[in-house]
Amino acid sequence: MSDVNAILLLSCADSKGLVAKISDFIFRHNGNIVHADQHTSKAEKRFFMRVEWELNGFALGREEIPAAFLPLVKQYKMKWDLHFNDYVPRMAIFVSRHMHCLHDLLLRRHMDELAAKVVAVISNHEDGRELVEQFGLQYFYFPITEQNKRKQEKKALELLREMKIDLVVLARYMQILSGDFLKYYPNKIINIHHSFLPAFAGRNPYQQAYDRGVKIIGATGHYVTEQLDEGPIIAQDVVKISHRDAVSDIQRKSKDLERIVLARALRLHLDHRILVYGSKTIVFE
Amino acid sequence: MSDVNAILLLSCADSKGLVAKISDFIFRHNGNIVHADQHTSKAEKRFFMRVEWELNGFALGREEIPAAFLPLVKQYKMKWDLHFNDYVPRMAIFVSRHMHCLHDLLLRRHMDELAAKVVAVISNHEDGRELVEQFGLQYFYFPITEQNKRKQEKKALELLREMKIDLVVLARYMQILSGDFLKYYPNKIINIHHSFLPAFAGRNPYQQAYDRGVKIIGATGHYVTEQLDEGPIIAQDVVKISHRDAVSDIQRKSKDLERIVLARALRLHLDHRILVYGSKTIVFE
Amino acid sequence: MSDVNAILLLSCADSKGLVAKISDFIFRHNGNIVHADQHTSKAEKRFFMRVEWELNGFALGREEIPAAFLPLVKQYKMKWDLHFNDYVPRMAIFVSRHMHCLHDLLLRRHMDELAAKVVAVISNHEDGRELVEQFGLQYFYFPITEQNKRKQEKKALELLREMKIDLVVLARYMQILSGDFLKYYPNKIINIHHSFLPAFAGRNPYQQAYDRGVKIIGATGHYVTEQLDEGPIIAQDVVKISHRDAVSDIQRKSKDLERIVLARALRLHLDHRILVYGSKTIVFE
Amino acid sequence: MSDVNAILLLSCADSKGLVAKISDFIFRHNGNIVHADQHTSKAEKRFFMRVEWELNGFALGREEIPAAFLPLVKQYKMKWDLHFNDYVPRMAIFVSRHMHCLHDLLLRRHMDELAAKVVAVISNHEDGRELVEQFGLQYFYFPITEQNKRKQEKKALELLREMKIDLVVLARYMQILSGDFLKYYPNKIINIHHSFLPAFAGRNPYQQAYDRGVKIIGATGHYVTEQLDEGPIIAQDVVKISHRDAVSDIQRKSKDLERIVLARALRLHLDHRILVYGSKTIVFE
Repeated sequence: MSDVNAILLLSCADSKGLVAKISDFIFRHNGNIVHADQHTSKAEKRFFMRVEWELNGFALGREEIPAAFLPLVKQYKMKWDLHFNDYVPRMAIFVSRHMHCLHDLLLRRHMDELAAKVVAVISNHEDGRELVEQFGLQYFYFPITEQNKRKQEKKALELLREMKIDLVVLARYMQILSGDFLKYYPNKIINIHHSFLPAFAGRNPYQQAYDRGVKIIGATGHYVTEQLDEGPIIAQDVVKISHRDAVSDIQRKSKDLERIVLARALRLHLDHRILVYGSKTIVFE
Repeated sequence: MSDVNAILLLSCADSKGLVAKISDFIFRHNGNIVHADQHTSKAEKRFFMRVEWELNGFALGREEIPAAFLPLVKQYKMKWDLHFNDYVPRMAIFVSRHMHCLHDLLLRRHMDELAAKVVAVISNHEDGRELVEQFGLQYFYFPITEQNKRKQEKKALELLREMKIDLVVLARYMQILSGDFLKYYPNKIINIHHSFLPAFAGRNPYQQAYDRGVKIIGATGHYVTEQLDEGPIIAQDVVKISHRDAVSDIQRKSKDLERIVLARALRLHLDHRILVYGSKTIVFE
Repeated sequence: MSDVNAILLLSCADSKGLVAKISDFIFRHNGNIVHADQHTSKAEKRFFMRVEWELNGFALGREEIPAAFLPLVKQYKMKWDLHFNDYVPRMAIFVSRHMHCLHDLLLRRHMDELAAKVVAVISNHEDGRELVEQFGLQYFYFPITEQNKRKQEKKALELLREMKIDLVVLARYMQILSGDFLKYYPNKIINIHHSFLPAFAGRNPYQQAYDRGVKIIGATGHYVTEQLDEGPIIAQDVVKISHRDAVSDIQRKSKDLERIVLARALRLHLDHRILVYGSKTIVFE
Repeated sequence: MSDVNAILLLSCADSKGLVAKISDFIFRHNGNIVHADQHTSKAEKRFFMRVEWELNGFALGREEIPAAFLPLVKQYKMKWDLHFNDYVPRMAIFVSRHMHCLHDLLLRRHMDELAAKVVAVISNHEDGRELVEQFGLQYFYFPITEQNKRKQEKKALELLREMKIDLVVLARYMQILSGDFLKYYPNKIINIHHSFLPAFAGRNPYQQAYDRGVKIIGATGHYVTEQLDEGPIIAQDVVKISHRDAVSDIQRKSKDLERIVLARALRLHLDHRILVYGSKTIVFE
């Protein structure tokens, strides 16, 4: 347990002494805080905190922490999550026909940059199979038609639950997931949208950007909710374009951006740096 | 006339030999091209060009150029504009209550960075008078109510025409100009919109950006058309924000951006680097 | 005292319980923390913190805080500074012949964006006098020759001390200040360097950037130390250039950048967000 | 030959009529210009041009073009290169132990984004072999010691010449190539340097950036010359860092940047958009 850290994410109504109470809880049990970050939203009078401390030397075993912390949770009506950084989340990647984000994730996994285990790649097309299997990973093909959509989604969901998936990444998956599916993974499905949301939501944002004549395009990593393209935004970035860029150039530039932004959003999630509040995120970078 | 350049902006259906014909026209009359830029839009099969040459040594007087160029214009059905860089356009600035863009323009004028003569500042409020008069400029106050709106706009228009204004800059002017007004200044009214259009068009984009929880905000310099916030975009830029930024922080960050983006759009216009085609711009930087 | 906050900046060797002890100190005296930020440098095993709380309701008067906090200071051998955000620092601006940064600061002051009182502008040239006096500020002219350099600097220093200046901003001041001068204002003199330090330190970075053919230029806001261009960096930003940019274009683009970067560095200082450690800064944004 | 374009890159002393003469040459032979870009460096009075036209319908066969163009070359003492965009250059990638840039190039090749044929990967380590062979490419291992350095380099050079390599990419290759090697590939060896040159040239720029406390780091794609880290810069980009970034974080952020910047530099080269003049580049984007 020598190098393991505990990470506590919490939010509650703002109140005096919250930082003191929480840091004292850790100190009293002989914990060493390595990072602490807090934010108070004045508009909503709400307090958010991320605190990370070393388990080494901590007086409580990891399974004892929740009970010990419970009085504070009750007193302040906290929403909270506790993570340990030696747990490697199990991840599934959904993809359709554009391979750049998938490929980027495989690259990062191969270079040990990804703090997750890629358990499966799921697709409604066969395009990615060869690449995925070349990297020694399982590829599942669920072709989708209007008729079989619900049934196939249900099968995919069963597969995820069987494989104990913690996190789903939509790496340019072009099917819309139903509310039934989403409710099993609240704030645990990350999508990369190939525009600077809320601009150019919906279909073919490259063409939309071209038609509007914008001078900058973007990409958005966000949690998936039932309101399409309206989930809490985790990360965004942009790149300049000009009149010289045809739709295909916009696509090429965007693809590099999508890879970077998805990877950044995913890393923030895996480092437990994100708190979702309403339709927005607090990201403790 | 020693240092004067002529600048020709033109567009027409694409055709073989256009660059050769146009550059030959200049060469035949002993002109020295200092910049040439062209663009062919494959999707629209349209040719755009900006060419700048020295009048010094040129065989034609500046008033003779149009007639000499006419055969090419007719042959290729060109749209074209001819400018000379020793003409200093006469500019009016419209402003309401936010002074940052106006102030920035006054600064640039004071430092001789602005290739235009600021002839008048026009406002529906008195807030800017002191500052403007301090810089030795004329300030015109046209208060607007629902009742007098058309009348006041008409008066402002008369004033502009009396003062032979070539270019109008809306430096955070919060009134919507009517089509009647706009038709006198086609592609000659530049607005700064305080969002990354088309995201957050309309009222209070700072609040909209806050509510949506975006991680990047932007500003857009564009020509004004009847379709509000849909005019051809000249320049855009962005800046990062986070959950720590309240609406007032977003405003503060945006204000710096708006100044820079408006100044950039204005400079591109004054350097005759912009061709408008439909709802888009070709910007020869 | 209703809206006044106290801001404590501190650093010490890392140790368990620091966050708990400090937040408890504030909580025990009935203070409400509005921001807390801490950083532990693993390499140097050093702890840095910025904590801001409301004086309204705080059990200690502002002059009682240091004595009450002293035991913690002693126990952990803290370096610390205590600020109150109702104190408006007194600032002097040094400038030579380039007016863009000075002008930008005057603009911000005029728009009430500057949390400081501009008490004097000091220059080795007369160029800025008209502008400065137009804004109702005092302008002091200290012409510098090789012979009178030390004497003039001494006079300027006396003036600063007479006027109780807290902060000096070098807004493109082209004279080097001596160590004798600097020792009176440790980490209280902010300079804007017109390059992306450490690239192109020294004279004429615009020309250096042009000669080297870089594709990006930058600006750097930093505290001034005896080692020229090596002081702790507060803020940096960059802008793209190309082969089309002559030295004069590089200058023009850089000037906009310098204004933004200097304003950002100054704001961070005035918000008490900067801790200097060795030749580096911790900036709690 | 239906979709093939010819691309002419040329430079010469500036002179009247150059654009007219060159575009007329193409027009006279019934060529359709699809892109033309020119630049005149005022400081050096030198003219640079890139012109691209369709071979389809062109009156000259591709092997006849040089002789037909020769009179202009002689008249203006042009330096020139002629390319055809159906030729796929043969590329070798050199790598040491950091795989991110190599991996990125393999990804782009796999997605058909690379207008070059990767013929070989050459390394002084065995680390990359498995990955490279997995993608069906040849891997050559040339271990380097102080003793065998020249000999191994000579062997590598022979291999390149045997395999008719047109272009060498140093994708984080940590050995310095000798002048003897470089002279065979003038402006045909592209290196990615993991800093914003000229800042932090030489060893370990991540550590240098950390030690200096800069707030932005960068990466530089450049042609390799005998003066280490001083070759003509093709592309640069930057990313923000803060005091929170340890050296390992700087490395992680830089790696994403290096991949993007190297890919951009390589694409510009493969599209024949770069003219080298002295120690600088003209990049016609």
